[in-house]
Amino acid sequence: MKTDVYAKTCPSRQVLDRIGDAWSVLTVAALRDGSLRYTELAQRIPGVSPKMLTQTLRGLERDGLVTRTVHAVVPPRVDYALTALGRSLLGLCEALTDWAETHIVDVLDARAAYDSRS
Amino acid sequence: MKTDVYAKTCPSRQVLDRIGDAWSVLTVAALRDGSLRYTELAQRIPGVSPKMLTQTLRGLERDGLVTRTVHAVVPPRVDYALTALGRSLLGLCEALTDWAETHIVDVLDARAAYDSRS
Repeated sequence: MKTDVYAKTCPSRQVLDRIGDAWSVLTVAALRDGSLRYTELAQRIPGVSPKMLTQTLRGLERDGLVTRTVHAVVPPRVDYALTALGRSLLGLCEALTDWAETHIVDVLDARAAYDSRS
Repeated sequence: MKTDVYAKTCPSRQVLDRIGDAWSVLTVAALRDGSLRYTELAQRIPGVSPKMLTQTLRGLERDGLVTRTVHAVVPPRVDYALTALGRSLLGLCEALTDWAETHIVDVLDARAAYDSRS
């Protein structure tokens, strides 16, 4: 299949939307060291609502980036982990969070300058 | 400033939202070879509506990633180009589009398998 993110109908653009989602990037990067339970993930990503985290995990699972494993114990335990495909995206997600952390000051300065002009 | 994309109130998370936007990624990558006019950009990104392209460019300009230069000619000409900050993001945007183009087939397979289970 010939893929081109710039082609209007190419599904690779949908992947860009997934990667593009900040919660997805944070979730993938949070799983870098191995599998985590739902509650552990929620702690690693402060501010994410349960609804948003569930929705993000479902999207990542559907896209083949994350596995969801239900353990038959009482109380039930659910683990999430990166698949090989998800792991191939990990470097990019970390590079994105690094860029954001490094350059946010420049971005905030630029915003203040822009807003004072308009 | 100590930045942490995982901190609930850290503004670096907003940067992640900007990078995360697929139109922003496509626009930054489209400007890799130098400045382009609005109409040239619209042609490089098929499917983007004028409203969405204008909104994306305004966001990128506000964040200090893109410059907007109005030339005093008739008819008026407006050029867009990456700033140094925007250029520092270019490699990541290209890596993202590459990943999307390379792995979309895997993602589509995963989706089909997921949907057939649920």
